[in-house]
Amino acid sequence: MLNQIYVDNIIKNALLEDINYIDCATDYLIPDEQSDTASFLAKADGVLCGINIAKRVFQILQPDTEFHIFIHDGEKVKYGDIIATVKCKTKNLLKGERTALNLLQHLSGIATETAKCVELVKGTKASIADTRKTIPGIRSLQKYAVTVGGGRNHRYNLSDAAMLKDNHIDAGGGITNAVSKLRSKLGHMTKIEVEVRNLDELREALAADVDVIMLDNMSPKLMSEAVKITDGKAVLEASGGITSDTIRAVAESGVDIISLGAITHSVRAFDISLKIAK
Amino acid sequence: MLNQIYVDNIIKNALLEDINYIDCATDYLIPDEQSDTASFLAKADGVLCGINIAKRVFQILQPDTEFHIFIHDGEKVKYGDIIATVKCKTKNLLKGERTALNLLQHLSGIATETAKCVELVKGTKASIADTRKTIPGIRSLQKYAVTVGGGRNHRYNLSDAAMLKDNHIDAGGGITNAVSKLRSKLGHMTKIEVEVRNLDELREALAADVDVIMLDNMSPKLMSEAVKITDGKAVLEASGGITSDTIRAVAESGVDIISLGAITHSVRAFDISLKIAK
Amino acid sequence: MLNQIYVDNIIKNALLEDINYIDCATDYLIPDEQSDTASFLAKADGVLCGINIAKRVFQILQPDTEFHIFIHDGEKVKYGDIIATVKCKTKNLLKGERTALNLLQHLSGIATETAKCVELVKGTKASIADTRKTIPGIRSLQKYAVTVGGGRNHRYNLSDAAMLKDNHIDAGGGITNAVSKLRSKLGHMTKIEVEVRNLDELREALAADVDVIMLDNMSPKLMSEAVKITDGKAVLEASGGITSDTIRAVAESGVDIISLGAITHSVRAFDISLKIAK
Amino acid sequence: MLNQIYVDNIIKNALLEDINYIDCATDYLIPDEQSDTASFLAKADGVLCGINIAKRVFQILQPDTEFHIFIHDGEKVKYGDIIATVKCKTKNLLKGERTALNLLQHLSGIATETAKCVELVKGTKASIADTRKTIPGIRSLQKYAVTVGGGRNHRYNLSDAAMLKDNHIDAGGGITNAVSKLRSKLGHMTKIEVEVRNLDELREALAADVDVIMLDNMSPKLMSEAVKITDGKAVLEASGGITSDTIRAVAESGVDIISLGAITHSVRAFDISLKIAK
Amino acid sequence: MLNQIYVDNIIKNALLEDINYIDCATDYLIPDEQSDTASFLAKADGVLCGINIAKRVFQILQPDTEFHIFIHDGEKVKYGDIIATVKCKTKNLLKGERTALNLLQHLSGIATETAKCVELVKGTKASIADTRKTIPGIRSLQKYAVTVGGGRNHRYNLSDAAMLKDNHIDAGGGITNAVSKLRSKLGHMTKIEVEVRNLDELREALAADVDVIMLDNMSPKLMSEAVKITDGKAVLEASGGITSDTIRAVAESGVDIISLGAITHSVRAFDISLKIAK
Amino acid sequence: MLNQIYVDNIIKNALLEDINYIDCATDYLIPDEQSDTASFLAKADGVLCGINIAKRVFQILQPDTEFHIFIHDGEKVKYGDIIATVKCKTKNLLKGERTALNLLQHLSGIATETAKCVELVKGTKASIADTRKTIPGIRSLQKYAVTVGGGRNHRYNLSDAAMLKDNHIDAGGGITNAVSKLRSKLGHMTKIEVEVRNLDELREALAADVDVIMLDNMSPKLMSEAVKITDGKAVLEASGGITSDTIRAVAESGVDIISLGAITHSVRAFDISLKIAK
Repeated sequence: MLNQIYVDNIIKNALLEDINYIDCATDYLIPDEQSDTASFLAKADGVLCGINIAKRVFQILQPDTEFHIFIHDGEKVKYGDIIATVKCKTKNLLKGERTALNLLQHLSGIATETAKCVELVKGTKASIADTRKTIPGIRSLQKYAVTVGGGRNHRYNLSDAAMLKDNHIDAGGGITNAVSKLRSKLGHMTKIEVEVRNLDELREALAADVDVIMLDNMSPKLMSEAVKITDGKAVLEASGGITSDTIRAVAESGVDIISLGAITHSVRAFDISLKIAK
Repeated sequence: MLNQIYVDNIIKNALLEDINYIDCATDYLIPDEQSDTASFLAKADGVLCGINIAKRVFQILQPDTEFHIFIHDGEKVKYGDIIATVKCKTKNLLKGERTALNLLQHLSGIATETAKCVELVKGTKASIADTRKTIPGIRSLQKYAVTVGGGRNHRYNLSDAAMLKDNHIDAGGGITNAVSKLRSKLGHMTKIEVEVRNLDELREALAADVDVIMLDNMSPKLMSEAVKITDGKAVLEASGGITSDTIRAVAESGVDIISLGAITHSVRAFDISLKIAK
Repeated sequence: MLNQIYVDNIIKNALLEDINYIDCATDYLIPDEQSDTASFLAKADGVLCGINIAKRVFQILQPDTEFHIFIHDGEKVKYGDIIATVKCKTKNLLKGERTALNLLQHLSGIATETAKCVELVKGTKASIADTRKTIPGIRSLQKYAVTVGGGRNHRYNLSDAAMLKDNHIDAGGGITNAVSKLRSKLGHMTKIEVEVRNLDELREALAADVDVIMLDNMSPKLMSEAVKITDGKAVLEASGGITSDTIRAVAESGVDIISLGAITHSVRAFDISLKIAK
Repeated sequence: MLNQIYVDNIIKNALLEDINYIDCATDYLIPDEQSDTASFLAKADGVLCGINIAKRVFQILQPDTEFHIFIHDGEKVKYGDIIATVKCKTKNLLKGERTALNLLQHLSGIATETAKCVELVKGTKASIADTRKTIPGIRSLQKYAVTVGGGRNHRYNLSDAAMLKDNHIDAGGGITNAVSKLRSKLGHMTKIEVEVRNLDELREALAADVDVIMLDNMSPKLMSEAVKITDGKAVLEASGGITSDTIRAVAESGVDIISLGAITHSVRAFDISLKIAK
Repeated sequence: MLNQIYVDNIIKNALLEDINYIDCATDYLIPDEQSDTASFLAKADGVLCGINIAKRVFQILQPDTEFHIFIHDGEKVKYGDIIATVKCKTKNLLKGERTALNLLQHLSGIATETAKCVELVKGTKASIADTRKTIPGIRSLQKYAVTVGGGRNHRYNLSDAAMLKDNHIDAGGGITNAVSKLRSKLGHMTKIEVEVRNLDELREALAADVDVIMLDNMSPKLMSEAVKITDGKAVLEASGGITSDTIRAVAESGVDIISLGAITHSVRAFDISLKIAK
Repeated sequence: MLNQIYVDNIIKNALLEDINYIDCATDYLIPDEQSDTASFLAKADGVLCGINIAKRVFQILQPDTEFHIFIHDGEKVKYGDIIATVKCKTKNLLKGERTALNLLQHLSGIATETAKCVELVKGTKASIADTRKTIPGIRSLQKYAVTVGGGRNHRYNLSDAAMLKDNHIDAGGGITNAVSKLRSKLGHMTKIEVEVRNLDELREALAADVDVIMLDNMSPKLMSEAVKITDGKAVLEASGGITSDTIRAVAESGVDIISLGAITHSVRAFDISLKIAK
């Protein structure tokens, strides 16, 4: 799904970061002809993400690597599960291990946390979405992991959708004027979202017929009112300081989207190990 | 301290990731001549890291940006503190904001968590160290943040120090043989660390006169014995599953180094906002 | 407006393409200390685009270059107009000339052709839009030039908006099913466009409540019917084989958008010369 | 013929430009296991160029793509001809289609226009040559397409041949002195061309024994005189404002080379479509 | 052993440097279908290094190249030996020849010169080591060649080991203070070397318990004294102006390491030719 | 003279190679505010090359570096001469020192050796030229250094001039046919050189009217005959195994060009040190 050229660039960059000359333990001790099989083992429960990227790490190091995947991206994984096995030269197992695990654990961490949030809002109409609060250089990987966890992607970057914050609105002469001015220039494939802090701004945004309205740091109660006022005429996105404690209440307000920075900017690595068979 | 060329590459890459064409809200709404001043505000307590990188983001977008730093890398920051101010074209404030914050929050998160661990082991001889469990592409940034938080750096990558794990030891014919073989090839500026799982392996590693010995997943009690046996003849590193609950006990065992993957692979972004003055 | 990092990369790449070693005539004949002033002269009538990029070419070669712009991007230019003057070392004038002109002429060609099309549809509600039929490597430059000529941008690439063609629709099980399936996965900031070839498909697309409908290779008459049926419930885009001869009739059908590949894939360079003052 | 590394870089860059995250229609709708066969169909008459590059686009996306070429670079193609077929995953067909067509149509456009010019001068001794008036980033592709169309390449860039324009000549103290000075420094594998505007300058250039003389914006009549004066002692190149209306007369003056910027800077895409078999 | 991604980048860069457009003799004269076999022939005696890199040059140009290696890296080679044979398209033989030979000859030159030095110190305890005096861009290749010749690697760069020169010592307040200050910050996997110019400094460095001490430009006699004083408490490295005339005497002083800039900064290419079979 | 973008890329790459994280001695010991002045001192006699590149190294590290050049590229330098002084932060002096010296010493080594060869052939009509036997990645730097030493550049790469070796000639059907075939395709700005091994081949090459003829491994006596036969109708280049012992005899044979691989593939670094003032 991800652009392979993009993925390969990230993997190659990571391998160069981890081996800028030689692997001085492995290259001096492991015989070139030795091969081994290793297993990716889950050390926690969650949703897997990134196993094809882990596979690619070893294929880049050694094209004829044998890699068998038992649990795929988006599937649930439990402590003790064998996720995949990899067979290649022992040298390459040891050289690729850290890069593969770093990516796999980070992405599975995102998918797992996203899935938890999705579970928390189950039964409401709310979807979980990501933000632009990502780790520089791997945004596409992170956004992919969010979808694998059952979330949805917000805009990828500043170029592909317009979000009007207070500075844009002030410079544009208020919501109505700003939206009108922007609409006269923006392409027809680009959505407009406006950030509002109260119901007056909400009403103005609705009048301006924008595609999406972000309810910024509102209480669930205020959001419920916003949902009533909006009445389906725009997509409503809740954002700002939402935690696992408050997310259910937010979702029950009737908003369409709950966007969470934490699922990409505060990722907890999902514990997976690579065990070489003796 | 960090290589500026490396930092610039990361920033430019992040800005291209966030703006692959234009900033379609900002470029169409904010007048080119409008300038503003914004403040970086702390929304939590911790240790700051990355403010020079945030400064550089805006300088790359606009070389004559005025940037005043009030709290520097490594200094404590409290909720509500003004960390720095930035004055430049409003367009560039809005274009650089997310990239600057993403980096600043991530690195301050690492420094803050590292500092907490350093505090937890205060009074013991243990230092906190990082690992190779980092986010691909920004390892140097992360390692720098660890030092800013009071921690120390483990090896940067597989090329600059040798760590012998069980596979190396098996292939090398046991600790003694493997170390001897490796020493005959390794440069004189490269340290050797051996991972041991019990006291027998520890004794063999000591006999082999290695520089550093990693005590892998040992109990604090076993580590204490290891410390006695070692008696200063090698640096002892504790590693594996150490949490804030157990770190003090580990430190009190007398080990020299406690290495923690979590400070780089499970970073919680430190909350900082950029507030444009009205 | 364009991301400066992106523009600089293109310019540097172009200069390396044009000088892979030295400029063997200039470097051996022009004294290092000689400076000159040169003027960009229009040799045709049209709309200017790219003068800041031309300026940047010389600034990259020599940061203290003096560059005065008399006609800006988006302004009309007539045969004989002095567009800008550049003063720097003669060596750098000669080294940068071709790169600056190649970019300036190409982009002004796009802006000029776009402006002609905009003029042709004046008074109707139709806007002119670009496509993904661009020259590999400079899509952002070309899209920018389209806006400078008064046109609008279609989606930038395959990632930022969804366009369903017949293959997508077939695989998705018809328009209704495909749109429904896609909507369950797509982010809330991403628009959906469906390509239709007849009025039945149009009605199905309308029923599916898509954002934009592309009328593929329809006659102006059929488009008029489509406009009536649509009645403002979706944005209508006309596409396919539209030329300067037919564009007015298409526009008068009442469609919202006319997208044209030719304004980026079949660009006629706008004639501009750089004249060094004697 | 073209350096594959160079070609691959251009293709990968183009694919990243067109898919910076995922193909949000294709990746969400087309089943991963679906394969299809598609045909490249000519929609006009001309000379084909770039089919191996189109093939490479799909091979980069999917190494086991089956690609059959029926019409090769340099061969004539007529409206309705099947140029090639490609069989691979439908996902990759849709992801590579635009990049492949953008390159193929652009290069075939150059080859076709070049071939027209070659045809126009048939029977004379004149060859058609390109210039440095190319699209930044794809000069090698464009120069290759010129040769495929039957034209010849002028110098690739400022480093591989010396062209003396008036500024060089002025700085060098006239044609004689400039050529002499340059010859004392230039490598023995590098040709010297001098631009002349009248017969006096021509005679001076001939006396200086340069390899090539460019007749700048001369009338066919004046060129005929130049040819007589030159009498085979240098290669004569006609340049400046030559169109399809005037090219025959220029060629009949007896010049050796007619260089045309338009064949690379004002390219009309050659219409080719990719039709997926139902 | 070397990171393949790093090696491939160097090879691709070299091939682009050598063919920025086409190989204008080969591409116009050699039939695409012609294949040939060529042999790498030694034209001198020495130690081979780089044959896998040479192989990779041709595999990058043509994946199905047949390449048979008879003499491997680190093996002795004599005038007239056939080192390897390569069979591929004649076009690719001619395009890859110079890049392959340039790398192979350079690296074999390093390995051969290193081996000579190793031979000169045979029977002493001294090892030969490289320095950071390398050719920009290919340091890893050069360091690898040193090990192939029987030498050892000094630190790779400024990041992976600390060498204190007089400026560091002065700024740090003398050897004792500087080492102490540094030790409080440096990671536990990083060695410290101190450069000393006399025995007093040596004693201070020993007291500071550094890992390695560099004896800078000392006479063999003074080094012998240094060896006695040190008595195995630190690794001693001799450096500065050591030539093949003096190296034996230096080695006999009892130092552990002799580092030589010349083996990487003043390399004499080892003569190898590529002979195409007729 | 060299393309600054190219030079900057090489310098940045070299600095990243030398500092992939931090300079662990300098960054931990040298106060950020400390500045120093250092002098580049010649430790041998020769011709200087690369001082502007050394300057640029420090300017890239610190834009306000003060750098005074006393001896310029191409000027003679004697043991003990102060070549230039550099004043900047001590940190940057230490970080840039090795990269600056590595480049400066390598290029001055080339210029010095070239100048020696030029001196050896003084009074004859022979020029000294380089070859494609260069260090991968820095060919332009090396070619520049050859001209600084008084030599001339052969072709830069396989794209900008045609050299026919025996394989080309065999495939082309003999010298006459091969040259004729090539001439029908080659651009008019590209020279043709033919390699000949005896006087018969020389005569055939002369009859084919090629620009340059390479006399491959001929004795000076045979070259004299070749010079007589050629009688100025082509440029004659002597190549193959020419050393300082034989170069004068070769030059006296009357050839125009003597090309030497050794001046770029077997460079002896020219000894220069950077001395920080106390």
